[in-house]
Amino acid sequence: MTYCLSINAERGLVFCSDSRTNAGMDNIGSYSKMHTFVWPGDRVFVLLSAGNLATTQAVIKKLHRDVEQAMLPNLLSVTSMGEAADYVGMVSTQIQRQQASRDTANTNFEATFIFGGQLGPTPPETFMIYPQGNYIHESSEHPFLQIGETKYGKPILDRIVKRNIDLERAARVALVSMNSTIRSNVTVGPPVELLIYQRDSLIEGRRLYLTDDDPFARELSECWNKGLVMALENLPRFPWETDPVKDL
Amino acid sequence: MTYCLSINAERGLVFCSDSRTNAGMDNIGSYSKMHTFVWPGDRVFVLLSAGNLATTQAVIKKLHRDVEQAMLPNLLSVTSMGEAADYVGMVSTQIQRQQASRDTANTNFEATFIFGGQLGPTPPETFMIYPQGNYIHESSEHPFLQIGETKYGKPILDRIVKRNIDLERAARVALVSMNSTIRSNVTVGPPVELLIYQRDSLIEGRRLYLTDDDPFARELSECWNKGLVMALENLPRFPWETDPVKDL
Repeated sequence: MTYCLSINAERGLVFCSDSRTNAGMDNIGSYSKMHTFVWPGDRVFVLLSAGNLATTQAVIKKLHRDVEQAMLPNLLSVTSMGEAADYVGMVSTQIQRQQASRDTANTNFEATFIFGGQLGPTPPETFMIYPQGNYIHESSEHPFLQIGETKYGKPILDRIVKRNIDLERAARVALVSMNSTIRSNVTVGPPVELLIYQRDSLIEGRRLYLTDDDPFARELSECWNKGLVMALENLPRFPWETDPVKDL
Repeated sequence: MTYCLSINAERGLVFCSDSRTNAGMDNIGSYSKMHTFVWPGDRVFVLLSAGNLATTQAVIKKLHRDVEQAMLPNLLSVTSMGEAADYVGMVSTQIQRQQASRDTANTNFEATFIFGGQLGPTPPETFMIYPQGNYIHESSEHPFLQIGETKYGKPILDRIVKRNIDLERAARVALVSMNSTIRSNVTVGPPVELLIYQRDSLIEGRRLYLTDDDPFARELSECWNKGLVMALENLPRFPWETDPVKDL
């Protein structure tokens, strides 16, 4: 499995992805699921991928090749984030059809993507692109997107993430959401990649690669555990704990 | 959907269940999923149910009828928790077969249960009973069990719940796990039922029925939110936040 998420905050974008891939439990690998396409000063795209690894790798390769060979449309020719998302969705379905046409074993070639970035002066945007090539947009009410093993890490996002969240704070929430997922599901694993894009910078921005034994990742995980224990300690006591007479 | 969980702590058992049932999103109802069978001083059984509501209601009814009509085996005749779990699993598969034999629409009659309690002087035990009637036992390494929408509420249990956890603390963790699930998934909803069984008491114990606007439930939810925000504030800052020179 996989867990990737993005947060579209007022001050910029946060992208976070795990690196575990598995074709069956006895075939575990580690591949980056975060891919960036950057033309400094002009446009920045980030693509997070979940699903069939052969499909996602083929999609990334074609996105690069189309630019190199000036095949239209490509990520450099598109004039809006929506157009770019349409193009990525089209490439994805194309690749899936190719793979399926050669299939002999009823294989699932589907892939899902989080695609986001900024194109020139237009506001940053993020999309979740379905295997069918269509997509949804984040919204002000729901500024985060998730793909893969999304449930373990969703409660903290639901509680904390608002559009106006501070960018570094959003990045910390993303890491906590990832950390919870990794602890609870063996099919999601480190290294964790984190990208923080400052709105209107039009450069890739800050990118962290956090291995299992990275000191910052460890400190963050330990601090979060301590914080949860404290939050638990501060919860209201049951009536009979504080007042033995007032029983239920 | 449904979310139910149990925790087998040294000092007793905690059971927690939501009350939402839905046959399609346009058919939402509210039914208790917590059922108790108590013979004070002799034996206490608690059954939490998930799955087909007709099946689970029929199972509960038969468990009562078998005792009333002294059909053997029944919950009063069994001599161990394992025997009781076997019996409940047998009743469940029996009912499912009956329902399926009359089925015309390829319906899913499956039901899953958390079954636990204490029989005489033997230690309290909890089981998760599969639709197939077989079951697994909690363990010292993994003292909690979940059925239904289990993923949203699992991270907090993974982090906090150990066998030696204090009983009221375990009850608070259970409520937090339920609260996170209800916030993130509309198919799980209040009222929330909580049962706290004191080891060797052989009485039902404390049972709470927490509606959406229950003051204690609200205070707990608000306190937990505040605690999470504080935990987030206390997380380590990124290197460039504390030391602008030391950039990444």
